[in-house]
Amino acid sequence: MSSPKKSLHGVNYAPPRSFGTVLKANLKETLFPDDPFHEFKNEKLSIRIQKGIQYFVPIFQWLPKYNLGLFKFDLLAGITIASLAIPQGISYAKLANLPPIIGLYSSFVPPLIYAVFGSSKHLAVGTVATCSLLIAESIQEKVKPQENMQLYLSLFYTATFVSGLVQTALGVLRLGFLVDFLSHSTITGFMGGTAVIICLQQLKGILGLKHFTSHTDVVHVLRSVFENRKEWTWQCAVVGVIFLVFLQLSRYVRKKKPNLFWVSAIAPIIVVILGCLFAYLFHAEKHGIAIVGELSKGINPSSIHLLTFNPDYVYVAVKAGIITAIISLAEGIAIGRSFSIMNNEQIDGNKEMVAIGLMNIAGSFTSCYLTTGPFSKTAVNHNAGCKTQMSNVVMSLCMLLTLLFLAPLFGYTPLVALSAIIMSAMLGLIDYEKFYHLYKTDKFDFLICMVAFLGVAFISMDMGLMMSVGLALVRALLYVARPPTCKLGNITETVFRDIEQYPGVDGIQGILILKLGSPIYFPNSNYVRERILRWVRDEQSLENSKRNEVEFLLLDFGGVTSIDITGVETLFEIRKSLGAKGIKIILVNPRLGVMEKLIVTRFIDVIGKESVFLTIEDAIETCRFSLKCSSQSKREDVEIA
Amino acid sequence: MSSPKKSLHGVNYAPPRSFGTVLKANLKETLFPDDPFHEFKNEKLSIRIQKGIQYFVPIFQWLPKYNLGLFKFDLLAGITIASLAIPQGISYAKLANLPPIIGLYSSFVPPLIYAVFGSSKHLAVGTVATCSLLIAESIQEKVKPQENMQLYLSLFYTATFVSGLVQTALGVLRLGFLVDFLSHSTITGFMGGTAVIICLQQLKGILGLKHFTSHTDVVHVLRSVFENRKEWTWQCAVVGVIFLVFLQLSRYVRKKKPNLFWVSAIAPIIVVILGCLFAYLFHAEKHGIAIVGELSKGINPSSIHLLTFNPDYVYVAVKAGIITAIISLAEGIAIGRSFSIMNNEQIDGNKEMVAIGLMNIAGSFTSCYLTTGPFSKTAVNHNAGCKTQMSNVVMSLCMLLTLLFLAPLFGYTPLVALSAIIMSAMLGLIDYEKFYHLYKTDKFDFLICMVAFLGVAFISMDMGLMMSVGLALVRALLYVARPPTCKLGNITETVFRDIEQYPGVDGIQGILILKLGSPIYFPNSNYVRERILRWVRDEQSLENSKRNEVEFLLLDFGGVTSIDITGVETLFEIRKSLGAKGIKIILVNPRLGVMEKLIVTRFIDVIGKESVFLTIEDAIETCRFSLKCSSQSKREDVEIA
Repeated sequence: MSSPKKSLHGVNYAPPRSFGTVLKANLKETLFPDDPFHEFKNEKLSIRIQKGIQYFVPIFQWLPKYNLGLFKFDLLAGITIASLAIPQGISYAKLANLPPIIGLYSSFVPPLIYAVFGSSKHLAVGTVATCSLLIAESIQEKVKPQENMQLYLSLFYTATFVSGLVQTALGVLRLGFLVDFLSHSTITGFMGGTAVIICLQQLKGILGLKHFTSHTDVVHVLRSVFENRKEWTWQCAVVGVIFLVFLQLSRYVRKKKPNLFWVSAIAPIIVVILGCLFAYLFHAEKHGIAIVGELSKGINPSSIHLLTFNPDYVYVAVKAGIITAIISLAEGIAIGRSFSIMNNEQIDGNKEMVAIGLMNIAGSFTSCYLTTGPFSKTAVNHNAGCKTQMSNVVMSLCMLLTLLFLAPLFGYTPLVALSAIIMSAMLGLIDYEKFYHLYKTDKFDFLICMVAFLGVAFISMDMGLMMSVGLALVRALLYVARPPTCKLGNITETVFRDIEQYPGVDGIQGILILKLGSPIYFPNSNYVRERILRWVRDEQSLENSKRNEVEFLLLDFGGVTSIDITGVETLFEIRKSLGAKGIKIILVNPRLGVMEKLIVTRFIDVIGKESVFLTIEDAIETCRFSLKCSSQSKREDVEIA
Repeated sequence: MSSPKKSLHGVNYAPPRSFGTVLKANLKETLFPDDPFHEFKNEKLSIRIQKGIQYFVPIFQWLPKYNLGLFKFDLLAGITIASLAIPQGISYAKLANLPPIIGLYSSFVPPLIYAVFGSSKHLAVGTVATCSLLIAESIQEKVKPQENMQLYLSLFYTATFVSGLVQTALGVLRLGFLVDFLSHSTITGFMGGTAVIICLQQLKGILGLKHFTSHTDVVHVLRSVFENRKEWTWQCAVVGVIFLVFLQLSRYVRKKKPNLFWVSAIAPIIVVILGCLFAYLFHAEKHGIAIVGELSKGINPSSIHLLTFNPDYVYVAVKAGIITAIISLAEGIAIGRSFSIMNNEQIDGNKEMVAIGLMNIAGSFTSCYLTTGPFSKTAVNHNAGCKTQMSNVVMSLCMLLTLLFLAPLFGYTPLVALSAIIMSAMLGLIDYEKFYHLYKTDKFDFLICMVAFLGVAFISMDMGLMMSVGLALVRALLYVARPPTCKLGNITETVFRDIEQYPGVDGIQGILILKLGSPIYFPNSNYVRERILRWVRDEQSLENSKRNEVEFLLLDFGGVTSIDITGVETLFEIRKSLGAKGIKIILVNPRLGVMEKLIVTRFIDVIGKESVFLTIEDAIETCRFSLKCSSQSKREDVEIA
């Protein structure tokens, strides 16, 4: 083991890499951080082509190896999620004020597309409450469904189309990281807030109201419930509460005995079937319990001709499309990822986006609206033992049979049953524990979460979401604008640590060691300058009492990941300010990219190569030598500095 | 000197600081990074109050110590900048399509206010071409000055008022760092682009045109110049070129002999005086050379009653006010700062903002429009030897005398003289060398600069600025979203450095050491996870050939400045993914804030305190011990991992 005294380790002053090399490296880090093509390296062309096709169309990867053994599992899982898809499809379509049949259509085409292009084995395709309500909320600003259902539908398909386009584009351009700007805290708050307003809206169904507000915020909805007190129907409420209790009990069972998950998985379809029987046998409509109404047989009609780009209306569809594209991706990707981590597989987020995008584009051509991979359905799929994307195909075939033969039967479903199903699903989305965890561990994350929650509940879904994302970005920019610096002291001769973190650790006479972090660039360069000057001032006021003046400022650049022109200019300024006080700057361990920029801007030439060191202890040794000389003769020291 | 072998240095697991402590520390770093009140500490109340007043109203600080010796310098400097203020004031007011007298008013009241509240000794107050044109461009979108001068003026005062309000608010709320988001590259490009379009606009004056476009972009302006070829007046052009050559020569003299700076400082007033004499003696107007026209005697009238908040128009004023507030601050602060660095003084940017804001609010009440500290004037002030803010007072008094007695004489100034003055000033603002420097040193900064330059020149000033700021923000967010990671190898037993930067340095068998940088938080946590997994995969494909499998992943957290909940969740995910591969995570040297978060989220409990080390060599020593055991018995190893 070499003693640090022996070697003054050389700093690497290699000439900067060429622009092309740096650009290529940066583009790769930005767009292909997970190196998706690593399997293709060093392969023959034919194998590359084969692997390329398998990469872009994963069905070619898993289908050739498929066998009956796997199919047994997928069949069971597929039937289970189909039994969930029927009630959820109808419910969420009602939530979006769409004809209920659209909900069934939406579980037929998109799962087939996903099975071809999707790479997650567990993801189960379906509509989600959040996006259903969000698109409805946006479009209702401009068009009321009760006034012009045709236009309302057209805009829904258009929004779905835009959504699919945005998703595909993000994936193809490998901009998936934009989705990361929706932080967990934002999503937790947004989901919670959405769950609250959706639950409250279900009071319409549970209480059997006929008139209701089209606003979604808590205040309007509650006012609407109480203003229409005359319409309250006790028969409805009784049925609703019974269904709700049944559904909640089934969830409770799953929670207590995870291997009884199928109880809660099939509970909604049981509610629907019981509801239909009840409505058929007792002529529920006569007792004030509304039913879904006629559902016609037949598979999805084409809806390409319905896509509208009329400039008077299209912007609401585009707005809704873009927002829901991001939200549904965030949900779909996050879920795919968490199941892949659970099973120790790798998922390429950008490729998943293309798959989800394609299924929505195809959906918008075939009378489907926005689908993604909802958490509840995917969990059921996973628990039911699915092995491949075939379970989505099975679900799709079940939906086909339903559409061809059974659809009219579901017309008897009482609306109150749908409300109970939605309400029960939503109650599970309010994640009290996560709220508490955030509150306990990070107050700012909690604030971001609460802004989303309260914004969604009391203003509107998109405003709540944007406020929360805005606040999260402010926080990100604050991190950027205020990178922490700290003063180091030596624990041993070779170990230097933050004096605040390790109290009792002491600085070195005449030398101030600062550790910088993060990039130094335009948003923070002034701060970095002022903060460094303040450290120097603080050190000097300390020193005045008992010790020498500061003569050297050691900047540990190990944590500085990059620097731009404004940052380099700041270094020149700091050098000038300190030079006037007779303090010399020493750089320690600049990283590759930073060193290149310092060389090319000639900062290294200005401070001299003798002022750059690889380690703090090397730098200190050299400084100490110069300090000793200076205590012998003050005049010499001035020249050195 | 202690050998690293001897001590396994203890990591500090002190319980996290309280929320209040952290919040206070963060607020201080965010809002008061320069610790402006450090002088007040440990003082008696009476002294605190005295220092407080001196802090907020700096005139109380310098006036009591003022003496005749200083005044001699300030008098000379004040007269010099006044001689510059008269022609510039009239010229820039013409540029903004305002009555020329407003330009003179604007050099009377604001300098007085600045002298009271400003803390820079060298800053000379005055109007600037950029902001004059920018406000004019914005307001002309809505109101043409030739159609309704009264309303146009009102909106100008309103914009100035809004600007002052924004500036004061930014200063009081200590949000000055927002100005830092205008990077040097953006400002260089913006100034260059503005200079080009202003120069081209002066062709109107030089060629004696009567009809001209109100657009500012290159294409419209050039088209306007050539479409009105019939109006070209050769007499005008000859006079204009003579003046321009004279002004450029005076600049050339200053460049060659810096102590003859006064030649270029008084050149503009000489041009104006010669122009007036010429116009008066030869009846220039008859020869097609237009003059300024009547200027009435008397000081600034009140303009409070002119401020308008009519909702039909006010938004253009508010928009112009906000943009120019930021731009003029960027100019004023940057200039105050660069002169303070030159003279080794400290300037509090936020306090300067309040001073500039107050002078604009006062200005908007007294028929002045937007003023700041222009670079050219400040440089002249500095070179003329000003000692305190008194030079602004002297300039102000000179303007008072001019307004009271001399104003009508300046009515004879030929417009072509003003155009020559503006053109000459603008030619100095195109910083070719900086463009080249940016191109050579940082291609992305160069791009940001060019977007501002071309955007201003070919679209509009505000669009150019916003596009450039937008691009700079994208870059900042990319830094945030893609923090560099690198693999470390050991140069000696205690020194570990990037293997890419120090080629030939080698990794350690069975142990992968990665250095992370920047905060780990929601925008980059997915990237960090994927990148780490990719490092592991790459290492494994290396290892397969000749060595053991990776058993330990050492994460050097020294450069990780902070972490949020999403970041911690990512760490849990990484641990899970690697755990499945039998790889154990070791953390090295987490910083204070990060350690607190890891403790409170129980991540430390999950990986165990025995997996956190203060130094890389301690960690490696422990890992090696475990690796040795594992090579003896494979089964034991599984248990440890």
